[in-house]
Amino acid sequence: MNQQISEESALKQQLRRIIFGTDTPLGKAFDIGLMISIVLSILLICLDTIDSLHTDYGQYFLIGEWFFTLLFTIEYLLRLYCSQNRLQYARSFFGVVDLLSILPSYLALIFPGANFALALRVLRLFRVFRVLKLLRFLADGNLLLRAMMQSSRKVFVFFFSVSLIILVLSVIMYVVEGPNNGFSSIPKSIYWTIVTITTVGYGDITPQTPLGQGIAAITMLIGYSIIAIPTGILTAEISHEIVRVRDLRKCSNCGKKGHDNDAQFCNHCGSELESLSSLVES
Amino acid sequence: MNQQISEESALKQQLRRIIFGTDTPLGKAFDIGLMISIVLSILLICLDTIDSLHTDYGQYFLIGEWFFTLLFTIEYLLRLYCSQNRLQYARSFFGVVDLLSILPSYLALIFPGANFALALRVLRLFRVFRVLKLLRFLADGNLLLRAMMQSSRKVFVFFFSVSLIILVLSVIMYVVEGPNNGFSSIPKSIYWTIVTITTVGYGDITPQTPLGQGIAAITMLIGYSIIAIPTGILTAEISHEIVRVRDLRKCSNCGKKGHDNDAQFCNHCGSELESLSSLVES
Amino acid sequence: MNQQISEESALKQQLRRIIFGTDTPLGKAFDIGLMISIVLSILLICLDTIDSLHTDYGQYFLIGEWFFTLLFTIEYLLRLYCSQNRLQYARSFFGVVDLLSILPSYLALIFPGANFALALRVLRLFRVFRVLKLLRFLADGNLLLRAMMQSSRKVFVFFFSVSLIILVLSVIMYVVEGPNNGFSSIPKSIYWTIVTITTVGYGDITPQTPLGQGIAAITMLIGYSIIAIPTGILTAEISHEIVRVRDLRKCSNCGKKGHDNDAQFCNHCGSELESLSSLVES
Amino acid sequence: MNQQISEESALKQQLRRIIFGTDTPLGKAFDIGLMISIVLSILLICLDTIDSLHTDYGQYFLIGEWFFTLLFTIEYLLRLYCSQNRLQYARSFFGVVDLLSILPSYLALIFPGANFALALRVLRLFRVFRVLKLLRFLADGNLLLRAMMQSSRKVFVFFFSVSLIILVLSVIMYVVEGPNNGFSSIPKSIYWTIVTITTVGYGDITPQTPLGQGIAAITMLIGYSIIAIPTGILTAEISHEIVRVRDLRKCSNCGKKGHDNDAQFCNHCGSELESLSSLVES
Repeated sequence: MNQQISEESALKQQLRRIIFGTDTPLGKAFDIGLMISIVLSILLICLDTIDSLHTDYGQYFLIGEWFFTLLFTIEYLLRLYCSQNRLQYARSFFGVVDLLSILPSYLALIFPGANFALALRVLRLFRVFRVLKLLRFLADGNLLLRAMMQSSRKVFVFFFSVSLIILVLSVIMYVVEGPNNGFSSIPKSIYWTIVTITTVGYGDITPQTPLGQGIAAITMLIGYSIIAIPTGILTAEISHEIVRVRDLRKCSNCGKKGHDNDAQFCNHCGSELESLSSLVES
Repeated sequence: MNQQISEESALKQQLRRIIFGTDTPLGKAFDIGLMISIVLSILLICLDTIDSLHTDYGQYFLIGEWFFTLLFTIEYLLRLYCSQNRLQYARSFFGVVDLLSILPSYLALIFPGANFALALRVLRLFRVFRVLKLLRFLADGNLLLRAMMQSSRKVFVFFFSVSLIILVLSVIMYVVEGPNNGFSSIPKSIYWTIVTITTVGYGDITPQTPLGQGIAAITMLIGYSIIAIPTGILTAEISHEIVRVRDLRKCSNCGKKGHDNDAQFCNHCGSELESLSSLVES
Repeated sequence: MNQQISEESALKQQLRRIIFGTDTPLGKAFDIGLMISIVLSILLICLDTIDSLHTDYGQYFLIGEWFFTLLFTIEYLLRLYCSQNRLQYARSFFGVVDLLSILPSYLALIFPGANFALALRVLRLFRVFRVLKLLRFLADGNLLLRAMMQSSRKVFVFFFSVSLIILVLSVIMYVVEGPNNGFSSIPKSIYWTIVTITTVGYGDITPQTPLGQGIAAITMLIGYSIIAIPTGILTAEISHEIVRVRDLRKCSNCGKKGHDNDAQFCNHCGSELESLSSLVES
Repeated sequence: MNQQISEESALKQQLRRIIFGTDTPLGKAFDIGLMISIVLSILLICLDTIDSLHTDYGQYFLIGEWFFTLLFTIEYLLRLYCSQNRLQYARSFFGVVDLLSILPSYLALIFPGANFALALRVLRLFRVFRVLKLLRFLADGNLLLRAMMQSSRKVFVFFFSVSLIILVLSVIMYVVEGPNNGFSSIPKSIYWTIVTITTVGYGDITPQTPLGQGIAAITMLIGYSIIAIPTGILTAEISHEIVRVRDLRKCSNCGKKGHDNDAQFCNHCGSELESLSSLVES
């Protein structure tokens, strides 16, 4: 980013700072405008699926939809134009997301035949995935992500064990309750067990026999207990990550560690501290 | 508070100590009386909405309501009278709450017309917000609040990610199940996804197709897993806050830190410790 | 306990060791026998409420009930006889529980009139509280209890805040949904809010209007978030308690602290450690 | 494992390395093939219980079932053949599981009479327990298991207390609501209480009386609060375990402890660290 190629036009450089950067007033305004456009555009798609609104305001929704499609098309073309490596941008995660968020509208224009109705309906809903464009503004999930990565192995072991328990309980419930009480097959029984063990409890399928209710009670208590395990694992990892991030900041003057995340000066000798973000990013 | 203006009447000073202070026997009695009045008054409002009780005891509820309205009016006027800066009190959070807790009753008196029935009904229910007067007695939420503030950024990232997941799952379920199975629009599908991912599980809308049940099961397991994340974040922060508060108390004699919250003497050299509350408040 | 009065009969001392103590083989056998009797007796009461079983085996249940009543009567009299201070035992928590666990059966005998049927039915169910006799065997909840006591103030602040949120949400839902959709009064609306915020979600009352469903979704997300708070508080306290208990054990030879709960020898110098239980009890 | 008896045939040694070991390419391929076979075989059993699929593809399921039965039979015989101590393997946990996962199919062949239909149906479902064969590949649950063992005593105390609360609440609800509102017996009332306290909330039985709804609300809040306790206990134990595992790794050069799990070099002096797995296993 620092070594910019001098041959580039000034406009292109300027545009890149606005579109890809966040450190200029215009860049910030662009980001906020984009964010609002995305949220509004998704709101539009969601509201359009409500029958009564679609009947009354369908036309306005269509106009709004094309407004946002054009907006995102311009954004996509601008990004393509001013990025230093166009192919790299086009093939990056956000490049693909940017393209996918405008493509469905154009495809719907090309195949307007009534016999593609359902496929088009589904296709148009894919526009909702333009919400992924928002991920761009989420540069802060690092600590969470790292804690999750660190504990992924333990979480896998946990989910593997839970799967075993779910399968065994499902078969038992299928045998005990049987098809007459809604447990019509093992996959359905697995669905019931997951509904129960996660404490969701829809109540669309419930045990009817005393024995089934007893096993259901045990299933619930198991779910209630093991809910603690991923929490425990993750909490321990996050605690560790927080301590680690804190220890990253060492006062360059007196060497004291363990400053608060928002501390700006060493609470031991008073000299200024390096900012946390610069440390984490490096 | 310490430098009191000498020109004030003794009565006013006395009243202020009783009404705003908590360190005199009369001040404590006033606080307890006020607390009981608030709770009783809210109980009255709640019971009045039960039809059978309203038919039989409606009159008594009305009398009780006016009794409490007059009581809180007197309290409001007294607070206004004896506060050192009347305008400041009137515009403070509690000044506004105190006013709002008596206003609805008087407004209902002014507009008794039958054509305002619904508006009045709603207005009168606003009296229930006089429960906010109780916040005055809640000077202890500091540690919790600070832990929540410290982790608010992480919690925001978490809720943003959860929103993304909810939206994506809602669209998928809307496509898979469709309006015939209760998923009549994307907003309704979002409602279902929130009901499921928070493990509430009303069962008013449930997936009917095998594929929908499979995706529902995944939704539940996601909810079950990510329930751990805010817990982990907050636990780590509260742990840190507890250690921080503990480290605030340093024995002035031998310098030992890390005393228990309820310790009164240094467990190393035996000299008396400063009280914790004086440290936290400073 | 150590200084026993010499005038006591040897039998009485012997009995006391068996009934109140747990350190002799006979004392252990007595405890286990008592525990099994309590569990069996409660099982009997529970099964007797199942109509089909009551019709077929009602007589046997009655015989069994009287068997256990006589057994617990003998136990009560023996405890009374051999306790060093009879009045103190009779008025202690377990003395009262022991008495209450036999009284209902005798009272049912005295008032057998059909016109007391319901009262007696309820009275007889009180026998189930003989389960409290089991608390005698629970000498191990100290750490948990202390962690809960330590955090009780914070938990109170938490529940007070949750109550405020529940009340405010209930009034809003009562206004939005109204009596036609099942929210027939504020108390009923409070019931719904608690069902939702605790993620129980029966589904007996569900919001019908889009606005109501939106507020319901917010209620769920609030419940989902604040579920983390008591966990966070308690986890932090338990962590602290565990560290505290660990630090209690200092090697008397080299002074090293922080041994595992099940460690028997110092892992630094190898000398034997004092047992943990002796430390916690003192 | 290290001292192998030299009289053994080379083939047997070779086989043992492939079947029981995981350190050769062939051994890994064998493990992966076995894992896939188990998962496919269970999938087959589950799908066979879906009526429409059973009608159409029942024959293919039968063929597939016999294919996997023969496969697992060969695996069982090979394991028996090449294990160093055959009786020990046959009586080990995995030996029994391996046998049980093939036995039902053969038994179904021997007793094909229609009068055993139900028994056979159940028996054949036992084949699903061949999922337990997968436990072989789960050598990583040690930390979790040790944390659970460490806290098992506290968790037992917790579950004992919860049982007491459940029983007492069940009896109260049985008395308050009675058989007319679905609380037909104490066991059924216990089922309801567990459904409520674990926040599952099917809604198949719900309180109808205002008093019952009040007690239900209290039950929910209790469940909501005590959900925190096992989490707190386990989190504290896992934190401790993580610190303990971390402290196991001491730099052999400078003696620094507390390295990250994935660290390969000492972050103090740069010399290579012993791998974590070798430490945990020893």
